[in-house]
Amino acid sequence: MELLSKLTWRYATKKFDASKKLNPEQLQSVLEAVNLAPTSYGLQPFKAIVIENKTLRKKLKDAAFGQEQVTDASQVIVFAAINNLSESHVDTFVRRISEVTQTPPEALNEYGGMMKNKVGSMDQEGLFSWASKQCYIALGFLLTGCASLKIDACPMEGFDPAQFDEILGLKEKNLNSVVMATIGFRSEEDNYQHHPKVRKKLDDLIVRV
Amino acid sequence: MELLSKLTWRYATKKFDASKKLNPEQLQSVLEAVNLAPTSYGLQPFKAIVIENKTLRKKLKDAAFGQEQVTDASQVIVFAAINNLSESHVDTFVRRISEVTQTPPEALNEYGGMMKNKVGSMDQEGLFSWASKQCYIALGFLLTGCASLKIDACPMEGFDPAQFDEILGLKEKNLNSVVMATIGFRSEEDNYQHHPKVRKKLDDLIVRV
Repeated sequence: MELLSKLTWRYATKKFDASKKLNPEQLQSVLEAVNLAPTSYGLQPFKAIVIENKTLRKKLKDAAFGQEQVTDASQVIVFAAINNLSESHVDTFVRRISEVTQTPPEALNEYGGMMKNKVGSMDQEGLFSWASKQCYIALGFLLTGCASLKIDACPMEGFDPAQFDEILGLKEKNLNSVVMATIGFRSEEDNYQHHPKVRKKLDDLIVRV
Repeated sequence: MELLSKLTWRYATKKFDASKKLNPEQLQSVLEAVNLAPTSYGLQPFKAIVIENKTLRKKLKDAAFGQEQVTDASQVIVFAAINNLSESHVDTFVRRISEVTQTPPEALNEYGGMMKNKVGSMDQEGLFSWASKQCYIALGFLLTGCASLKIDACPMEGFDPAQFDEILGLKEKNLNSVVMATIGFRSEEDNYQHHPKVRKKLDDLIVRV
């Protein structure tokens, strides 16, 4: 498939060309890909923080082991999971279903109740872990969305989440940063683009039963 | 982008047409998309178990609240994270880097040491959580890969991981099931394909800074 050649083209870009920015349509497209990522029950228990502000990005770089992608990329996108997901999030989601599908809210009571049971069955740590995993699906959609448009990206776990939360004021929004990606366009000087992609042999990854 | 229309086309397929199967090229393509998913350090700390065996799938269905996708889809793909990731996994990965990039292993000592420090810094629970998150990136790549080929898929967390591990004999392989997807082709009778897709308004998902 054509996507495979684009997924082979992509790599974790270490050096971005700081002079090249996504145009508004490109940014809109990759954010829509993020929004189209499926999540458990459809709850989308996270926000995607899109950071362009240079002052903030300098601070974020310091909290990310000085990795230059954070300041040189076109945008930084931090996935922040909702901390302590509550019944009110379920209610908001049910209202959204009602609105989009033009279903009376009372017809959604059973589905809402099921989600509340699920949410109520987990402790705060379990809820956050669950919400965090949904962020990683969305990260996958972001990366494939970027690749399909030949936009470069670097997924990054190497940062201090507590410092990120502080810098971005996430705590007071009941959010905690989980994972991020920097997006933009590779610098010609980034030698990693010429390295062969290292993956397992397919037979070492796949078990057929 | 063309991918967006395909991501809009996709939905969590509830009813598959059991008579329609992926051809070998299609299956190969979606598995290659899984293998192209990036992972932390490139370690790929999981296996993708591809299940076609009908007897096993009946047992898996029972351990997945009787959801019919498990028996009716073309394939079931279970992402199973490596439990207790060890230095030997790092060594295997370093050998693979050496092989693919034709770099002498001793030139990779520093990178290997860094990964071993990372792995050594986490307890078993932390390691498993970390490995599990990588499975979700791969799930994202599977779903977008399927959509790009107009193959249907249903991501599923609703199953009993311990029973899955037992049925698939994962424990003795040092693996634990994390998340799965069923893939194949939608049945004409699946009404969910006609439902409008419910997602947040983009401005409710995205925070611009």
